[in-house]
Amino acid sequence: MMSKNRTSLPVVGIIGLGLMGKPMCLNLLKKGFSVYAHNRSEAKRIEAEQAGARVPGSASEVAENSDVLITMLPDTPDVENVLLGEGRALGAMRPGSTLIDMSTISPAFTRQLARRCAEKGIDVLDAPVTGGDLGAIKGSLSIMVGGEREVLERCRPVLEALGDKITHVGPSGSGQVVKLVNQIIGVGNTLAMAEGLLFARRAGVDPETALRAIEDGAAGSWMLTHRGPQILADDWKPGFTVALQQKDIRLALEAADACGTPLLAAKTAHSLYQALLNRGLGGDGNHALIKAVEFLSGDRSD
Amino acid sequence: MMSKNRTSLPVVGIIGLGLMGKPMCLNLLKKGFSVYAHNRSEAKRIEAEQAGARVPGSASEVAENSDVLITMLPDTPDVENVLLGEGRALGAMRPGSTLIDMSTISPAFTRQLARRCAEKGIDVLDAPVTGGDLGAIKGSLSIMVGGEREVLERCRPVLEALGDKITHVGPSGSGQVVKLVNQIIGVGNTLAMAEGLLFARRAGVDPETALRAIEDGAAGSWMLTHRGPQILADDWKPGFTVALQQKDIRLALEAADACGTPLLAAKTAHSLYQALLNRGLGGDGNHALIKAVEFLSGDRSD
Repeated sequence: MMSKNRTSLPVVGIIGLGLMGKPMCLNLLKKGFSVYAHNRSEAKRIEAEQAGARVPGSASEVAENSDVLITMLPDTPDVENVLLGEGRALGAMRPGSTLIDMSTISPAFTRQLARRCAEKGIDVLDAPVTGGDLGAIKGSLSIMVGGEREVLERCRPVLEALGDKITHVGPSGSGQVVKLVNQIIGVGNTLAMAEGLLFARRAGVDPETALRAIEDGAAGSWMLTHRGPQILADDWKPGFTVALQQKDIRLALEAADACGTPLLAAKTAHSLYQALLNRGLGGDGNHALIKAVEFLSGDRSD
Repeated sequence: MMSKNRTSLPVVGIIGLGLMGKPMCLNLLKKGFSVYAHNRSEAKRIEAEQAGARVPGSASEVAENSDVLITMLPDTPDVENVLLGEGRALGAMRPGSTLIDMSTISPAFTRQLARRCAEKGIDVLDAPVTGGDLGAIKGSLSIMVGGEREVLERCRPVLEALGDKITHVGPSGSGQVVKLVNQIIGVGNTLAMAEGLLFARRAGVDPETALRAIEDGAAGSWMLTHRGPQILADDWKPGFTVALQQKDIRLALEAADACGTPLLAAKTAHSLYQALLNRGLGGDGNHALIKAVEFLSGDRSD
């Protein structure tokens, strides 16, 4: 039951108004959706209210008013707590409504959650995204969707307000798995770039000249083209933070362990991100991985 | 002294008519260069002769007839042996002629060789390439040139017969360093791809769907776009072989060790390539790295 009037837009709830959730909320409002929003901090709720969302003040009230409820939260325990724990939002959802979890969390928990939803007659999609805060602002996220294709099709207008590449990748949990594949490959490419640029400098070659000479060839990557120049400019502004990258790779390692998959490079990258967190660099962009290799090489001590 | 007539093309010698050297020789002939060629095996010499090259039968005779002498050999000891050892080609070169080593070899040996050339009044460039056998055939190699810029400019017509992206990257040895940067980043991206695709499959998601969902985003790379589909199609045809990749990464690790640079991912990739060599897979394409991760995961035993 998307709404009483079949031609009208569903009422959308969104829980989590952080770096990603807030611009997503604004895009839904811009596209004409009636939006209920919640965030723990009052400041974020006030911002959403001023933009036109209704902010009843609790996750469960958002849930009970939503045809489609979106969660966009940092980690597995946050989603668990909001939906099943303190927030009790799942209990407040109406049968026939749809939960879309757009957080990046554990695929195993996602599958459990899908079973809980099925018992309550609630449809569910896991729909993690890539594209960073800029993609969230522009409404140009890539969305990897796990769950029933029919549920995805029904929710397409909502997802299209948020992203421009929406891919159905399999049953519940598959969206999370594909997101982790993305993170595994992304950090591997980041580590490769870090090692290559550090080696260039230490072996006496200008890293920028090296980057320009190779970026269009077989060593080319999105990371090298977009984050390489940031590294060379000593610009650590995050498209995606060290702290979140470290969290995502932890999820990847846990999921890989559960299916017995050795991840040698991703495991190494995870340890290096851990080192950056330990040095208080969690807010840097994820390309700051090179700093960890520089620590190891003796080129950096700050 | 490029030739007696200032407007005519230099006489070019080429030593090494393998997967790369042979098509390079043919491209030089096509562009109207007078070419002297040598290869240890007679069969290769006959092929070159039939294409229009002169094949005097020894490296030193090629060297003494060349204004510009190109070496395109597998590894450091091969270049050393041809130029300084058995082949004695360097001793046969005329003062004022130019040596262009286009092999991928040790940057340290390259710098030694440059000093030896300087003592004999021979100009020298290190000019390793990327682009594989296909690039060599099409004359579309990327060429990373170390040495004096003025020498590069004088040799530009020769290099332009072979490649379409010619970058001066610094003094002698710099071409080799940048080539190794390329290989370090390339194998890191390959390892990242291998881990990501293997994880996708073992976590129950169709790897092709995963690849399509992510290849245009932050995880994108030349390797993922070009070698990912080959992996999924079980196609191990080499653009560049496991054996040569393993050799190049060995050179990178040696050079990195010499300048105290830790290469965690590249070192891991090197061990995995070693495992492939041990199983007789040296002729596979370098994307066969995923087979090594599959061995570790128990998914492959052949």
